[in-house]
Amino acid sequence: MKAAIVGASGYSGEELVRLLLRHPQAELAAVTSRQYAGQTVARIFPKFGNDPKAKTLRFSEPQPDLLAKSAEVVFLALPHGVAAEFATPLLDQGCQVIDLSADFRLKSAAVYKEFYGHDHPAPELLERSVYGLPEVYRAEIKNASLIASPGCYPTSILLPALPLLKAGLIDSSNIIADSMSGVSGAGRKVELDYLFPECNESVRPYGIPKHRHLSEIEEQLSLAAGAKVIIQFTPHLIPVNRGILTTLYLTPTRWFENEAALSEVREKIARCYQDAYAGEPFVRLVEGNALPDTKNVTGSNVIEIAWRLDPRTGRLIVISAIDNITKGASGQAVQSMNIMRGFPETAGLN
Amino acid sequence: MKAAIVGASGYSGEELVRLLLRHPQAELAAVTSRQYAGQTVARIFPKFGNDPKAKTLRFSEPQPDLLAKSAEVVFLALPHGVAAEFATPLLDQGCQVIDLSADFRLKSAAVYKEFYGHDHPAPELLERSVYGLPEVYRAEIKNASLIASPGCYPTSILLPALPLLKAGLIDSSNIIADSMSGVSGAGRKVELDYLFPECNESVRPYGIPKHRHLSEIEEQLSLAAGAKVIIQFTPHLIPVNRGILTTLYLTPTRWFENEAALSEVREKIARCYQDAYAGEPFVRLVEGNALPDTKNVTGSNVIEIAWRLDPRTGRLIVISAIDNITKGASGQAVQSMNIMRGFPETAGLN
Amino acid sequence: MKAAIVGASGYSGEELVRLLLRHPQAELAAVTSRQYAGQTVARIFPKFGNDPKAKTLRFSEPQPDLLAKSAEVVFLALPHGVAAEFATPLLDQGCQVIDLSADFRLKSAAVYKEFYGHDHPAPELLERSVYGLPEVYRAEIKNASLIASPGCYPTSILLPALPLLKAGLIDSSNIIADSMSGVSGAGRKVELDYLFPECNESVRPYGIPKHRHLSEIEEQLSLAAGAKVIIQFTPHLIPVNRGILTTLYLTPTRWFENEAALSEVREKIARCYQDAYAGEPFVRLVEGNALPDTKNVTGSNVIEIAWRLDPRTGRLIVISAIDNITKGASGQAVQSMNIMRGFPETAGLN
Amino acid sequence: MKAAIVGASGYSGEELVRLLLRHPQAELAAVTSRQYAGQTVARIFPKFGNDPKAKTLRFSEPQPDLLAKSAEVVFLALPHGVAAEFATPLLDQGCQVIDLSADFRLKSAAVYKEFYGHDHPAPELLERSVYGLPEVYRAEIKNASLIASPGCYPTSILLPALPLLKAGLIDSSNIIADSMSGVSGAGRKVELDYLFPECNESVRPYGIPKHRHLSEIEEQLSLAAGAKVIIQFTPHLIPVNRGILTTLYLTPTRWFENEAALSEVREKIARCYQDAYAGEPFVRLVEGNALPDTKNVTGSNVIEIAWRLDPRTGRLIVISAIDNITKGASGQAVQSMNIMRGFPETAGLN
Repeated sequence: MKAAIVGASGYSGEELVRLLLRHPQAELAAVTSRQYAGQTVARIFPKFGNDPKAKTLRFSEPQPDLLAKSAEVVFLALPHGVAAEFATPLLDQGCQVIDLSADFRLKSAAVYKEFYGHDHPAPELLERSVYGLPEVYRAEIKNASLIASPGCYPTSILLPALPLLKAGLIDSSNIIADSMSGVSGAGRKVELDYLFPECNESVRPYGIPKHRHLSEIEEQLSLAAGAKVIIQFTPHLIPVNRGILTTLYLTPTRWFENEAALSEVREKIARCYQDAYAGEPFVRLVEGNALPDTKNVTGSNVIEIAWRLDPRTGRLIVISAIDNITKGASGQAVQSMNIMRGFPETAGLN
Repeated sequence: MKAAIVGASGYSGEELVRLLLRHPQAELAAVTSRQYAGQTVARIFPKFGNDPKAKTLRFSEPQPDLLAKSAEVVFLALPHGVAAEFATPLLDQGCQVIDLSADFRLKSAAVYKEFYGHDHPAPELLERSVYGLPEVYRAEIKNASLIASPGCYPTSILLPALPLLKAGLIDSSNIIADSMSGVSGAGRKVELDYLFPECNESVRPYGIPKHRHLSEIEEQLSLAAGAKVIIQFTPHLIPVNRGILTTLYLTPTRWFENEAALSEVREKIARCYQDAYAGEPFVRLVEGNALPDTKNVTGSNVIEIAWRLDPRTGRLIVISAIDNITKGASGQAVQSMNIMRGFPETAGLN
Repeated sequence: MKAAIVGASGYSGEELVRLLLRHPQAELAAVTSRQYAGQTVARIFPKFGNDPKAKTLRFSEPQPDLLAKSAEVVFLALPHGVAAEFATPLLDQGCQVIDLSADFRLKSAAVYKEFYGHDHPAPELLERSVYGLPEVYRAEIKNASLIASPGCYPTSILLPALPLLKAGLIDSSNIIADSMSGVSGAGRKVELDYLFPECNESVRPYGIPKHRHLSEIEEQLSLAAGAKVIIQFTPHLIPVNRGILTTLYLTPTRWFENEAALSEVREKIARCYQDAYAGEPFVRLVEGNALPDTKNVTGSNVIEIAWRLDPRTGRLIVISAIDNITKGASGQAVQSMNIMRGFPETAGLN
Repeated sequence: MKAAIVGASGYSGEELVRLLLRHPQAELAAVTSRQYAGQTVARIFPKFGNDPKAKTLRFSEPQPDLLAKSAEVVFLALPHGVAAEFATPLLDQGCQVIDLSADFRLKSAAVYKEFYGHDHPAPELLERSVYGLPEVYRAEIKNASLIASPGCYPTSILLPALPLLKAGLIDSSNIIADSMSGVSGAGRKVELDYLFPECNESVRPYGIPKHRHLSEIEEQLSLAAGAKVIIQFTPHLIPVNRGILTTLYLTPTRWFENEAALSEVREKIARCYQDAYAGEPFVRLVEGNALPDTKNVTGSNVIEIAWRLDPRTGRLIVISAIDNITKGASGQAVQSMNIMRGFPETAGLN
């Protein structure tokens, strides 16, 4: 199977290159980048320099027609608002498209406009697209032609929250997500804020209280809850390259006023996560005294999840850790590709 | 005025050395360290190597009698449980004592035992001690002989929360504090968890859900609220040397169902902070679009505070940033000393 | 083929676990650690938590007899001076041994004593052991029963220097190696010097002027030069987890007094490196304006090498970058294993 | 005394603001920045937000006439090539000018052109300017109207090398300087290479073999040696905010063929450094087993120097550490100002 990457010069694009170069069933047939057109992948990304494919494959200008001819699956790693331009002609010519931008993640063009500030460029595709969170939408992904691969923060929040919400174990009106992200999450954007001396020895919140990712997080939570869900979300920037750690503050629907109730709630939550994720290759339920740590998932497609009930406050604290570029972007996109194409789901991701 | 530091070899001790060496009214008369006894300060801490005092002053074994003779103010930078041994004889011999451990921060010996796991070593001193948060207890500090200097997390939580609580602007039963701390917060402890490769490129929570600092945080919040307050608190370890960033999730007592109510609540909060902190030399109310950032307070005794109302959720988000070693420990202790001794409050801290 | 790791709890051990778990021909049959005996690999190293083998394989006490029964190849990731205890019985029972310590890297027990400060524990094995630098000793490795895998600094110095020395292109009496290493190079040693706040925002030399690694570097250089070589070597500690960058200051034997001579020397060096390394899967000759960067080799078994002639000084500057834990330790050891066992040399290393 | 800073928005400019705000004899009268004109210093640099002056002082457009009226000393923190435009009118109007760029550091306009690629914009000023290295040119600085403050790498190389060269203790034809710099050394330049994820977990050389700073380094070394000196210099970029560590490889003129000769050379070098620097407030001769470490000089105007003779190679290794922004730029510029104005040399720098 042949794959192409449009916009392969950013951090997600680079990670897609890494994953597809070593994928046993996929062949990387084309990579595009306006900036680097004409140069080899090995030159722009020296770390792939010993890969024979990377030595010969050159970045090209992004042209949908040529892409459609050279690949069966096309990954779009473009800024939001631009992906739609490519998705339409590629789909028309029979490609399967996996978009890593926010363009097709929402079902509502109105919500898109509210959060992204401009009209949706291809609203007719919103219905057709499938939200590429394999642990939740595996069946839909299997038959999809257009995948909207989830954002990094959404992945870190949805995977731990959805099972609890579906099982009715938590109050949907009182969800707080506090997240910390490494700087690669900002993309390969050349801005003052992301210079090394501005980020190192620094921690800071940003984009509060209404970060764009809220739109897809709340849409997915609402679908799971069967009712409109609004949450609190605070992202912070921390001086690591890769990784998101999310701490969720949740309120169980069942109050645990004594030891017996506490045990009962504890057991229900444990069972809920077991039922949801015991067989999942990329979910790790962290047990015992251990807690998630982003360094345990660097470069991997795994999400770590742990939880604690606090009998003093009646709250449930759930913590997750992912690599924002792998499970939070490119790894998850490849996971979707594996499902769409009938490959083993972990192919190229171990 | 002569000052001494007991336990000067840790990170708080080192910072006390830095601040006292350059203090215009204080003279550093003695520093103790079992480990480094006999060696000069300049040798153990090369960064003070060009200070004439540091070249000659030697670490000594900690002996209360000698300390009492050589200094009028003694700082204790010792692990909890040990400070009491020194405080009693020093106070008896007329010294003023500023303790940076947790030993005298609580009013209740029972709560101490609950959180620290052993009987309080000198319960009779608990009543006498003053909680050394100058912005709140300035008058009491002025006349104190024993100061319990606050913990780093507590400082980052109490300063933003107390004015709101006292003014009745927030619900005392629904407070969440999510904090991130640099690794110096763990002290100069030689443990695997704090090795560079274990911390760099890593983010992780720890000590949840019942961190020891909760005891002093909740005692102070309860005093402000006039009722027992229990909060949710999650500390995280991040790869910076110095700095704590705390994000508080609060619920205003007044719901802002429309623009007018929102404006009113906004104004009340703004006024509340202005009233509390407009004249404070070490509180910076961050305004406009700016948000706190630990790099703005590194090496300084300032706390940055900013806040946002979220009309979508009805919550108030308050963010604070401090240097955990300065405002969170040694700087604040020197601030208390300045007040006790009638020096300008900012002496040696600019 | 079954493999075992003795001393699997350090950073090299952990990396061996990573590489062997995903190796297509090797099965990780045993891992030992006094400290962690009885616990699963998945528990001690959460990042392997989704690997089925890691979930069941438990650390055991190191016992040569049991190891010899369970594995054909045994890796020793132990401190120097201890490896010999295990090598002798394992070899006697027919195992192939790959030692990552310094114990078998030297041919002379006297030099060992000079640099390591104690008698060699098994001098009779020195002759039998093969220095596990595949690019130089591939043929010898193929038939070896005892491999002494090179140190990290030596690898970063020898691979760029040896071809030039063998070709007589540089003066063997005037070699300077200036190296920078990430903190994992110190091992998982719980010492004050390696705490995060002691290393972050810090750069410092150490172990000068006579670092232990000089013994093996100089022995190998001398063998290549056919004469005793003594070099200058300065290691520095920098705040990265993984990576060594070495800058070599060399003097070409042919002075380039004009453009023609310069071209000639340039061509000879280029050809020398091409001849030595063009077919090597793990050597990357960095070309054009690019220069080595440790981030290009993180987690990979590749060494990057670039060079510049300086017509102003007549010197040749050669720069190399490796991952100290992979090519500098465990990756190279697995590369040797692949050669010994007749596997493709890159198996498990891509 | 009133001081102004032209180009106060970069890292050197910011550090000048910090040092002048707390300087006991200087008043910061004007700061210019095209980008930030009209905004307060407190707004652009929140870390100065509690300084009363910073709250009111606003960045202005850079206009020599206005500057000349408002300040007696003007610091130029501008890119090379631009400083000359300001220096001429300011000097004409009687200001003293301290330039932090490379524009006035060389005596030869031809060398300037060779290294900077364009004609010198004001060659007539080259003779008038004094190289602002106080430990060497204190007397000249005292009477200067135009100071060319040294570069960061040159400072780290010249201070350890000059005394040895002047005393004839080292061979001037065989000097190698290997340096590592923190990322702030690149300035507040918004370029891909300096993004956090491009620098963190990375080490790399750059600008070899002919870095621009060589021109001023070699000019100063030549003056000291009384003959043309050409050196080898390799800068590396490492992931710290601030700090330069330089390792010098030198050859003593006197060979130490035995213990007695070694002792003699050792004594001569020790005496040479003592004679040169014993009374210098900002030079720290690191003694005993200790070695320089950039973390010992962060935020300070001190240079640390240590040295080792290597009897195996006959070389002298000298290591220095500075903060590239303080002793390497703004601190040293303020030190020159103190000398020019007859203030205590350490004023505002402790």
